Amino acid sequence: MRAAVLHAPGEVRVEEIDDPEIIEPTDAVIRLTATCVCGSDLWPYRGVESVDGPVPMGHEYVGVVEEVGDQVRTVKPGQFVVGSFVASDGTCEICRAGYPSSCVHRVFMSQIGTQSERARIPWADGTLVATPDLPDLDLVPSLLAASDVLGTGWFGAVAAEAGPGRTVAVVGDGAVGLLAVLAAGRLGAERIIAMSRHEARQKLAADFGATDIVTERGDEGVARIKELTGGLGAHSVVEAVGTQESMQQAIGSARAGGHVGFVGVSHDVALSGEDLFFSQVHLHGGPAPVRRFLPELIDLIWQRKIDPGRVFDLSLPLDQAAEAYRAMDERRAVKALLSV
Amino acid sequence: MRAAVLHAPGEVRVEEIDDPEIIEPTDAVIRLTATCVCGSDLWPYRGVESVDGPVPMGHEYVGVVEEVGDQVRTVKPGQFVVGSFVASDGTCEICRAGYPSSCVHRVFMSQIGTQSERARIPWADGTLVATPDLPDLDLVPSLLAASDVLGTGWFGAVAAEAGPGRTVAVVGDGAVGLLAVLAAGRLGAERIIAMSRHEARQKLAADFGATDIVTERGDEGVARIKELTGGLGAHSVVEAVGTQESMQQAIGSARAGGHVGFVGVSHDVALSGEDLFFSQVHLHGGPAPVRRFLPELIDLIWQRKIDPGRVFDLSLPLDQAAEAYRAMDERRAVKALLSV
Repeated sequence: MRAAVLHAPGEVRVEEIDDPEIIEPTDAVIRLTATCVCGSDLWPYRGVESVDGPVPMGHEYVGVVEEVGDQVRTVKPGQFVVGSFVASDGTCEICRAGYPSSCVHRVFMSQIGTQSERARIPWADGTLVATPDLPDLDLVPSLLAASDVLGTGWFGAVAAEAGPGRTVAVVGDGAVGLLAVLAAGRLGAERIIAMSRHEARQKLAADFGATDIVTERGDEGVARIKELTGGLGAHSVVEAVGTQESMQQAIGSARAGGHVGFVGVSHDVALSGEDLFFSQVHLHGGPAPVRRFLPELIDLIWQRKIDPGRVFDLSLPLDQAAEAYRAMDERRAVKALLSV
Repeated sequence: MRAAVLHAPGEVRVEEIDDPEIIEPTDAVIRLTATCVCGSDLWPYRGVESVDGPVPMGHEYVGVVEEVGDQVRTVKPGQFVVGSFVASDGTCEICRAGYPSSCVHRVFMSQIGTQSERARIPWADGTLVATPDLPDLDLVPSLLAASDVLGTGWFGAVAAEAGPGRTVAVVGDGAVGLLAVLAAGRLGAERIIAMSRHEARQKLAADFGATDIVTERGDEGVARIKELTGGLGAHSVVEAVGTQESMQQAIGSARAGGHVGFVGVSHDVALSGEDLFFSQVHLHGGPAPVRRFLPELIDLIWQRKIDPGRVFDLSLPLDQAAEAYRAMDERRAVKALLSV
């Protein structure tokens, strides 16, 4: 089958690799309908994370089940499925407590790769959720978004305890940040402040429910959030970048007793214990337990109540994966969909 | 009046200073019954925090109201009162949300000093809670503990979401850690693991409700907690020290999705964003909002359901404050009470 393979920093090639097979009786093999490029794929693409030989890329996916192992019970061939970017057994104590992304048997799908025609999905019962029927084609981008960026933005908003009566600030205007805005709105937040200085992203944030836009960053961004919240800071802040500056901006923007949900993958971040202590915020984040939210998210998409697929502003066939990476690397695209 | 004054590192003298007076109409002046020395008083005593000239010490207190300002409504002269180590107006949005220690008008009592015969208490209505009557003498140590160490240990356990069905680990066997053990028990925790290598403190932890004692520290301590919790880590961890090692030990000891309540005042702590991200814990702490818990704590003490005063293993008259500091500095005492 064809798959996007990273050979060296900046060098993505779509080439023939072996077809996946059922290895464990809990596996499924799916034929992908669509996949995409994630902000986190850019770390190895840019050489920030080292790459050891040619490596198949990707971890987001929707598609049709082709084959299942003997022990798979909840999905069957022919069904259209959405799965999390982390495979999880669904039965361990951590999964049952709502943290499948930290499942004791978890497999990061990035270790398998999903920018390909087919993919093996470990722990199919604990990982995949079937849609009610084969979806209309225009729903595919939104269902694909649920696999990671929507689920991650949603977790950020849940971790930040966005809800009725709350003012929510979102740091980061990438796909995850924009979808955290959408999530905060669905969760009933009263006021949603998107921090962005890109016009097109500001527009999308507003369409997703942002009530205010703040263009300042760092200390100035914090000061502006305080100004908008009676000097106190936001009740809820979602951090969707993962840098030192964005984490400090997020913590500084929250009021004492408030909640910071951080879902940007941290790179070289060191938090001052003293600042955290006196900020008195709640801090929670990590790799999003997307599987926890999938049934609800699929339902909202199926009923056309949310349209998270709008974050895809570039759509290319899988064969043009290299161009998709370039467009995201150069920030010409927020998020690139690859149709298979 | 007499008061303990720090002149230089290691040099505490009890001497005459001016009597306090009502300054604001929201103030009260109390005559202290008892006060004590806190672990945090040792930072300036040891010269780790710099001292600028002679400074009155202390921030924990119980006593009898002598005089109140014109606007004070909830306490009156003659009443026995307990107050938090942070004075708070009780009316701002942060106070009403349960975070009086981050009140927009807060005053840290350490800036006033309470190791003295009398003390001015700002924001008396928002800060002080009167007991039902003058207390029996044997209740005074427990009521004094409520002013800081009990309230702080309690907040640590609440922030760690200690409760029924939960395994709670406590890092730190000072007065706050020991009282976090007591709090976890009152909050219904199923299993309480005290981390301590001091025999007398282990004994007190067991009396307060600890079901397990772990003597290992650092990575070995984390490994031992994992071993005791099916490889997953504790649901709830209270951090009651404030060092780099204790914070890492606390975060490492919690399971994914678990809660870490940190109440040790952080000194030179830097947390790795990446470790925190992948630990997937909830982190919450800071200066304890003691005032939130005072009515409940006073009631439990008044009904003799808890005896937090047992953390005082040294009791001296105020005049011997210097010896109280020495005993705590040399770890001969867990906590020293000063009777006035």
